[in-house]
Amino acid sequence: LRDLEEKTPRSYPLPPRSKKNEVLQEDLRTPDNHVERDPRLIRLTGVHPFNVEAPLSDLYDEGFLTTKDLHYVRNHGAVPRVEDNDMLDWEFAVEGLVERPIKMTLRDLISDYEQVTYPITLVCAGNRRKEQNVVRKSKGFSWGAAGVSTALWTGVSLGDLLARAGPKRGAKYVFFEGADKLPNGYYGTSVKLGWAMDPERGIMVSYKMNGEPLHPDHGKPLRIVIPGQIGGRSVKWLKRIVVTSAPSDNWYHIYDNRVLPTMVSPEASANLPDTWKDERYAIYDLSTNSAICYPAHNESVPVDLAVYKLKGYAYSGGGRRVGRLEVTLDQGKTWSLANITYQEDQYRINKDDETLYGGRVDISGRDASFCWCFWDLDIPMPQLQEAGDVMIRGMDDSMNVQPKDMYWSVLGMMNNPWYRVVIHKEDGMLRFEHPTQPALLPGGWMERVKKEGGDLTNGFWGDKISGQDNAA
Amino acid sequence: LRDLEEKTPRSYPLPPRSKKNEVLQEDLRTPDNHVERDPRLIRLTGVHPFNVEAPLSDLYDEGFLTTKDLHYVRNHGAVPRVEDNDMLDWEFAVEGLVERPIKMTLRDLISDYEQVTYPITLVCAGNRRKEQNVVRKSKGFSWGAAGVSTALWTGVSLGDLLARAGPKRGAKYVFFEGADKLPNGYYGTSVKLGWAMDPERGIMVSYKMNGEPLHPDHGKPLRIVIPGQIGGRSVKWLKRIVVTSAPSDNWYHIYDNRVLPTMVSPEASANLPDTWKDERYAIYDLSTNSAICYPAHNESVPVDLAVYKLKGYAYSGGGRRVGRLEVTLDQGKTWSLANITYQEDQYRINKDDETLYGGRVDISGRDASFCWCFWDLDIPMPQLQEAGDVMIRGMDDSMNVQPKDMYWSVLGMMNNPWYRVVIHKEDGMLRFEHPTQPALLPGGWMERVKKEGGDLTNGFWGDKISGQDNAA
Repeated sequence: LRDLEEKTPRSYPLPPRSKKNEVLQEDLRTPDNHVERDPRLIRLTGVHPFNVEAPLSDLYDEGFLTTKDLHYVRNHGAVPRVEDNDMLDWEFAVEGLVERPIKMTLRDLISDYEQVTYPITLVCAGNRRKEQNVVRKSKGFSWGAAGVSTALWTGVSLGDLLARAGPKRGAKYVFFEGADKLPNGYYGTSVKLGWAMDPERGIMVSYKMNGEPLHPDHGKPLRIVIPGQIGGRSVKWLKRIVVTSAPSDNWYHIYDNRVLPTMVSPEASANLPDTWKDERYAIYDLSTNSAICYPAHNESVPVDLAVYKLKGYAYSGGGRRVGRLEVTLDQGKTWSLANITYQEDQYRINKDDETLYGGRVDISGRDASFCWCFWDLDIPMPQLQEAGDVMIRGMDDSMNVQPKDMYWSVLGMMNNPWYRVVIHKEDGMLRFEHPTQPALLPGGWMERVKKEGGDLTNGFWGDKISGQDNAA
Repeated sequence: LRDLEEKTPRSYPLPPRSKKNEVLQEDLRTPDNHVERDPRLIRLTGVHPFNVEAPLSDLYDEGFLTTKDLHYVRNHGAVPRVEDNDMLDWEFAVEGLVERPIKMTLRDLISDYEQVTYPITLVCAGNRRKEQNVVRKSKGFSWGAAGVSTALWTGVSLGDLLARAGPKRGAKYVFFEGADKLPNGYYGTSVKLGWAMDPERGIMVSYKMNGEPLHPDHGKPLRIVIPGQIGGRSVKWLKRIVVTSAPSDNWYHIYDNRVLPTMVSPEASANLPDTWKDERYAIYDLSTNSAICYPAHNESVPVDLAVYKLKGYAYSGGGRRVGRLEVTLDQGKTWSLANITYQEDQYRINKDDETLYGGRVDISGRDASFCWCFWDLDIPMPQLQEAGDVMIRGMDDSMNVQPKDMYWSVLGMMNNPWYRVVIHKEDGMLRFEHPTQPALLPGGWMERVKKEGGDLTNGFWGDKISGQDNAA
């Protein structure tokens, strides 16, 4: 697989060089003692299972494409062990409500189908969950804002595989199952068959990330990759694709990756199986989200700078593009328009027959957006100095705007209120404070305000009312 | 056309009987002096052109399907006059970047193509604009919350027409032009070709509404109907379908139906042609929205009732379904889940070959939602009596939630903050006050609060802060 790497110069971004890592000391006493990892990754669930994000600045600094070293990881259990020599013999099946069930190996997939390579942003549904956990503990661990990454994925369009198998009448869903055996069975989940058959959706069965065979944490040797949807649907270590008439009843499909109505408490949720099973609450498409990456948390800047360049990322879901990003320095009273860079569009202008890593880069005819974008805005330092905070919000091209208020829910997912960085004036410097820090790391204005007795849900970030007419 | 009306009993809603109306006195001295109309409709732009919505209660009371009598109308100018006898001879063209340009009549459309009938909700992008106008005057007239209606539309899938014409390489958009000549040319607008070819999007060329030939205000004899998108793309009095490589440069495509960034003022917008032309700000898909219909504005209810049933509507766009509706009686601190009725789903369970009004009702295999839904919630009267207001918000199945705050923009479109009804206690009665009344009609808490000096944008609906810790 490795000798398919590309050397030709390209008109679009290629990934930064990834590192040769080693098995880390802390992993030696876990089932993952065969997995080489980057020590910069922040562990969100203790040592094991491996759930990690990069430091937000490091993630941003890698640019549009993220290496395997810093790409976020969401593992439910031990990583299945697959030797390099066994990769091409990896077996998987396409079965269920199909005319011609298929049993095949990764070797067959590569030899018998057209290969494609797309840039795709994956996002954990829990991205920014720490903010929800500070407001009220949810049933999920504390992602910061780096549960998002972009890579070049190579593989086969799922629609091609399914077309060959031939969905039968009544087929409505596609279920994916991985090789990771967990307390409640193998990890598995389903999506709608219509999406799987829709080329605009770009769902693929992938065996290469950034031109290299999949890293064990990212599904070695084979996984599903679904653009525009939460990462939890992109099943890793793929063993079975099952066409069905109903959504999956896999435990992880029902009890994970849902936004239950906000009034359902963790306690009440234990006795509401019908609520959990209600497909309307299952998350598929991502919603509009954005974050400020620079200034970083605890970054300090001398006040005598002329200008500070704010920088960050944004994404939306279901193929929708983020059409605008707006910055406020006065808590939403006025807004400035940020510049947006859509590096994904650089892939659209290549020749139709261009291949990369053995796959056709055929997104020139596609309307849908599969990737995050970066935004920036120069702020004259005097303005920053006068402000108490700075916030970013995005709106996608379906005019879905990020809300000011948090929608708290029992799994703490899809958190997307305006991303707020507080500005402190200290000895001729401005120091910036992000909402939270990931995992159990202390820091951030949310914990601080809460500790000081502020009500984070008061509509003003727990502050005493500012900009309000209190003359009552 | 009329003898195609259906009499068989159905498992899904059929439209209420429409009335025989007359040309109204006030229309006699306008170019629309040939158009019969229902006097209940509220005129939003004086006598002419005809832009109207029904009283909100009347609209709700008609149920899932709206008659032509109460369906909202958005006309930019005079209604083209087409005699009944000339309808089938109406000529239109499919041209531009196609292999086989087509010139045809409505008669050809009916005889040469498969006919379909779907329930489709149309919504004006300006629905609820009056609320924006009270905050700050926009460049648009004052819709209340009844700029939305649902009907059974019969016609031909636009994709079928385009497939026969054969889009050429480089074709990316489809432009529609009407017969209504306006100060800036014929009304016209474009959408993406990919949508037009996607059966899930359901875009059609329609000549019947609720089983009757189109009423003149609704495009007699032929129009485009686009489910899930703003009404402004569903061109009426259709004359030309033009396949193109670029979005339309028609004046109405550029300078109407856009959500410009919020900081663009009416004054500044006059000198920002590039901003107007930025396709990212063009509105296509609807965003999540909802309203309270009962209690109606100024409805009074005795406090000794046991229970009051709140009722209203909701919709989203791009085929997305509203997955939840939540009611708050304490300004967002706590929420209750409303019941939702998806009458659209009753059309999904019919036989595959079922026809209605001469068109196949083939939505059983479709995932997308094309229609509004109704919600209701019983509130014990003591709770309503204690509350100062009641609000509804919806979230669609892509987890796009209605925001608390208004996103004001220069055209005042896509207004969708939580819909708020204020509760007044008066002499053993509760009296309810909606945000606004349509057009220049006085009434509503927004105008009242503004007149009293409240700042409607303070994050608390202009009220003095309530539920806040002011002990500073």
